[in-house]
Amino acid sequence: MTVPKGFQPFPRSEYLNRLGRVKKEMSRRGLDMIFVVDEHNITYLTGYLGLSAYVPQGVIITMAEEEPLIILRQCDAPAGLHQCFMAQDRVIHYSEDLVGNPNQDGFDMIIKCMLDLGAAKASVGVELTAMSSLSADKFRKALGAKITDITRMVTWLRLVKSDREIEAMREAAAISDAAMLRAAEVIRPGVREADASAEIIATLIRGANGKPGSRLAAFFMCASPRIGTCHIPWAEDEFRQASQINLELGGVRHGYVSGLMRTYSIGKPSDRLQKMHDIQVSGLEAALEAIKPGATCSDVANAFYSTIGKQGLKKDTRCGYAHGIGWLEPTASLRDGDMTVLEPNMTFHMMLGNWVADDFGHTISETFRVTDTGVDVLTSAPRDIFVL
Amino acid sequence: MTVPKGFQPFPRSEYLNRLGRVKKEMSRRGLDMIFVVDEHNITYLTGYLGLSAYVPQGVIITMAEEEPLIILRQCDAPAGLHQCFMAQDRVIHYSEDLVGNPNQDGFDMIIKCMLDLGAAKASVGVELTAMSSLSADKFRKALGAKITDITRMVTWLRLVKSDREIEAMREAAAISDAAMLRAAEVIRPGVREADASAEIIATLIRGANGKPGSRLAAFFMCASPRIGTCHIPWAEDEFRQASQINLELGGVRHGYVSGLMRTYSIGKPSDRLQKMHDIQVSGLEAALEAIKPGATCSDVANAFYSTIGKQGLKKDTRCGYAHGIGWLEPTASLRDGDMTVLEPNMTFHMMLGNWVADDFGHTISETFRVTDTGVDVLTSAPRDIFVL
Repeated sequence: MTVPKGFQPFPRSEYLNRLGRVKKEMSRRGLDMIFVVDEHNITYLTGYLGLSAYVPQGVIITMAEEEPLIILRQCDAPAGLHQCFMAQDRVIHYSEDLVGNPNQDGFDMIIKCMLDLGAAKASVGVELTAMSSLSADKFRKALGAKITDITRMVTWLRLVKSDREIEAMREAAAISDAAMLRAAEVIRPGVREADASAEIIATLIRGANGKPGSRLAAFFMCASPRIGTCHIPWAEDEFRQASQINLELGGVRHGYVSGLMRTYSIGKPSDRLQKMHDIQVSGLEAALEAIKPGATCSDVANAFYSTIGKQGLKKDTRCGYAHGIGWLEPTASLRDGDMTVLEPNMTFHMMLGNWVADDFGHTISETFRVTDTGVDVLTSAPRDIFVL
Repeated sequence: MTVPKGFQPFPRSEYLNRLGRVKKEMSRRGLDMIFVVDEHNITYLTGYLGLSAYVPQGVIITMAEEEPLIILRQCDAPAGLHQCFMAQDRVIHYSEDLVGNPNQDGFDMIIKCMLDLGAAKASVGVELTAMSSLSADKFRKALGAKITDITRMVTWLRLVKSDREIEAMREAAAISDAAMLRAAEVIRPGVREADASAEIIATLIRGANGKPGSRLAAFFMCASPRIGTCHIPWAEDEFRQASQINLELGGVRHGYVSGLMRTYSIGKPSDRLQKMHDIQVSGLEAALEAIKPGATCSDVANAFYSTIGKQGLKKDTRCGYAHGIGWLEPTASLRDGDMTVLEPNMTFHMMLGNWVADDFGHTISETFRVTDTGVDVLTSAPRDIFVL
């Protein structure tokens, strides 16, 4: 018996289109074969969403073959058969003997597979710098020093989304909005941070508009006295009168995330917080106005920095990053000096968290796509401090 | 103003003891200085639990200094100050200009810091093969080809737990048990997988015995027709009459996880499932009986394999792995041929998930510690198929 093909969020034509763009880039670089190891690039190319990237796995694409070949460990192959768009024989696996084995691992089998496909005589690209140095050395040794590093080649292609990808991110954004509104219902003095987080995260899973969250993305709840921190979840603590809470979360649909940050205050916000919020929102609005095809990431970031700078505020961190499968796409950043030119259907998390002291910070963000003429903000929670 | 020191789950003496073991091993290897990049090793050595490992960060330990030095990106330093056991001046940071910067990154500053501490003239160990090949090449270039790879040196030291670490895992195990019992309440025909997952995960966050889960660990819900898969979360589907559900989850306390797997059946289990369950439980019991100081990981695995083999069942995957901070410790495995000798307070997830066909599998597991004379099973959910 075989596991049936599962629900396919994207049609075959969508994947063939993505592969067409990859092959065009392979052709431009003179490559016959590539090996992709980044788990989000794997999702992009095949639809595979198993959480198995802690063991070797990856995708081989050749110019000669229409469909990619995914190689997983044996016990993950059924998930590959269930989720990937390809024919069954395009999902192959290596033996469980290679897991937890101090002498060899799955990459040894993957390299053998590439050699069987003619890698020794081909022009081969591998996401070398993304993998561990142990694994990269294996590829270099077996395939020769001439193999090309293609780290971030596929990642850059992900920056411009298809309309179907935008739709997934729009659904994810609705989940993020719902979770922020739920937070406003459950954050109260005397409530444990964990209990509020349980409710908010349950909302991220149940989803919105009848569409469940597909998995969990990053979730950060930085509450007083931790509002100068940015990457910690709920603490072993409860909310108090006058607590401030900085929240960052993201709904997920089919692997696509739409990040969102908002700030909450139990009781009237302090003058310091209200003033900072007002300045940050003015910066957000200026940055959104700067978005249009032809503008650069640097232009958008500097619209924010100069608007808040005129009001005496500074932000050390970047203003956001390319956004899609698995949260951050490590390509374009909304930062001074990033000359990436905006194109329609590029998507970003405009991340305006601003941690100005060890013990003070404010968070607000939006997920947006570039349109033909400007910007389409996918998230839509009120741009206020939520006063509870 | 500075962020106050947060709740410290372990006393200073616990960390000094861990560091003492690390320095003893450094001394044995003739090392003056090490750099540790594995995020779970960082937690082990400092108490830092920020979710920031997607950017460069790490810990420097020198034989000359009592406390480690943690280096984080600027915006994560407040979390370091809040969570780490060390003095404030042992938490340092690099500029945000190095984040999302195509020309240099945080490792460039970390290497400079190591050179300032005398790395050029010292005998230096770095977790080289664990980091990306791009980063490893930076360390090799700056510190010379003579630097020693210490990947998994600290990880191996984590295998034997202190009594306080065992206590954290026991609290985590109680959370895992509570979540499994909650699953039995919410999995019903017509319920969406996402809605049941929301309830189960909320339990993992709320915790047990007044102690919240500290964060979320892996969560896999593989329900019919996906019971031959192992590493996927809830699907876009609902439970039906006669559905089988294989669940793997883990409560977390202070970063320590206690994994647990159980199998659920809506309605009477099929003969095939009941027979498999009975065989698997007999194998589990035989494996638990084989655990004692002096036995090897291989002995324990083979007690399972031979017991189920006599009853006509085979399992391709290993029977478990060292277990603690962040789920899997990539050191000892409960597999044939792993000659690691068991010692008191070693902890493992005895992972008996057995996926025998693309469309059929069964899950059961326990988290245990080795005692002076045998085994102490930390998880305690009933070893039955939960019939709903």
